[in-house]
Amino acid sequence: MSLKLIGKHRSFGGEQCKYRHYSEVLQCDMTFSIYLPSNKEKKKIPLIWWLSGLTCTDDNFSQKSGFQRLAEKYQVAVMIPDTSPRGEHVADDEGWDLGQGAGFYVNATQDPWAKHYNMYTYIVDELAAIASTLVPNFSGEESIMGHSMGGHGALIIGIKNAARFKAISAFAPILSPSQVPWGIKAFSTYLGEDKASWKEWDATELIKNSIDSPPIYITQGLEDQFYEIQLNEDNFLKNANTKMVTYQKVEGYDHSYFTIASFMEDHIKFHKNNLNK
Amino acid sequence: MSLKLIGKHRSFGGEQCKYRHYSEVLQCDMTFSIYLPSNKEKKKIPLIWWLSGLTCTDDNFSQKSGFQRLAEKYQVAVMIPDTSPRGEHVADDEGWDLGQGAGFYVNATQDPWAKHYNMYTYIVDELAAIASTLVPNFSGEESIMGHSMGGHGALIIGIKNAARFKAISAFAPILSPSQVPWGIKAFSTYLGEDKASWKEWDATELIKNSIDSPPIYITQGLEDQFYEIQLNEDNFLKNANTKMVTYQKVEGYDHSYFTIASFMEDHIKFHKNNLNK
Repeated sequence: MSLKLIGKHRSFGGEQCKYRHYSEVLQCDMTFSIYLPSNKEKKKIPLIWWLSGLTCTDDNFSQKSGFQRLAEKYQVAVMIPDTSPRGEHVADDEGWDLGQGAGFYVNATQDPWAKHYNMYTYIVDELAAIASTLVPNFSGEESIMGHSMGGHGALIIGIKNAARFKAISAFAPILSPSQVPWGIKAFSTYLGEDKASWKEWDATELIKNSIDSPPIYITQGLEDQFYEIQLNEDNFLKNANTKMVTYQKVEGYDHSYFTIASFMEDHIKFHKNNLNK
Repeated sequence: MSLKLIGKHRSFGGEQCKYRHYSEVLQCDMTFSIYLPSNKEKKKIPLIWWLSGLTCTDDNFSQKSGFQRLAEKYQVAVMIPDTSPRGEHVADDEGWDLGQGAGFYVNATQDPWAKHYNMYTYIVDELAAIASTLVPNFSGEESIMGHSMGGHGALIIGIKNAARFKAISAFAPILSPSQVPWGIKAFSTYLGEDKASWKEWDATELIKNSIDSPPIYITQGLEDQFYEIQLNEDNFLKNANTKMVTYQKVEGYDHSYFTIASFMEDHIKFHKNNLNK
């Protein structure tokens, strides 16, 4: 395995690390970041996954959210993948909401995307195997969270693997990608025009048939410029019915990392409580 | 006055704002950022200045340090200037440690720098006048902190204006600019080869003759790649003698914003305690 440590910074007592590796699933070089708490008490450490939004790399969350203070406080490791396959030989698009930086956490079936755009399997299988070797004293427990496109990613990965992920949380997630411009553009490109194939990648569809979804916690800013068009919650909440979904609207907050930072402690606490059960 | 709000984000209950204005002192358009806490209790609010390091703008600190949580917790406003004059018509250098992004918080006397590079007067006079209009219920109390080149800036501004600033703190400051490569390059360029003129911009010189310096709190990471060559503390501490300097070395931490974020609460607490006297 071609795993190479390319950055390490002491942060709140733990270590913020960045790695490069060759991904067999994505057929390209990738970077990811991982935070390891100090674990001074030598306990078993659970792992929270963070999936970022459109245009991000693994750096945005590690540099802008301030999560490390909380990961150290609550003694959890945090794994931060990139948002798409990367490289000059990897298919791309001129738009910022398609191609590199916009993998949408699906496995693509359409050319020229199918060769590299398999972020779902990359995260759920390949990166998970690597993460388990990097967290010292790993408890084996996992949960998942994300922002915007990454909120969509966290929901579909968490619901599709309900026995594995103990909790799902999201900031401003794309809850119904099959019904909104960002999702329709990505899904028709990566998955093709047959909308039946979109259902397995749409949280609003998945939650309808889920009988064992992990608890879900969502924070949505009411000053988020994308809220009405891209992030509407109505269909998701209707389909979730009585399942364990907490949907928190916050006045005055927008789509930025300032919102993520402001409510990060609520999210990490939510994960920690469910990981410890 | 040409003050224009160009960004505003709710953050931890307060507002992270960004402004553009024309600076008479610098003879160019400038941006700065300011954080205003919620002030729910309608108290008088003090102001802490943050000065950034080489290559930074006002965005680095507002996006990477997580200070907003603490500014809201301790109810202080925080003012973040840019690090130099800016613009195509402003003198510059190819090096990242000279010219734009590297104003060194001095008033330049040498051509072609003297026209624009007057960051000291810009901050102490022009920007201070603006800040006082932007902080609602401003107490009039000020303190100052910074990182690396900005730590140097905080020290010289704080010591030279000891009656005005209640506290000074710094992360990895350039304590003796006249004696280290970064400072020698900048001072010989901006101030000329006569080293006598450097003394009024060098904290190690200023602290020697200061009889009323505000209390000073410094955090230095021991894994900081610039520590030995650029940031050595020996001469400063010798000259400070018995004055109120706390110099904290922290094992394993480097020159990055991960260090700043990790120890920000210690610094904000230090400022708050001295502002409240």
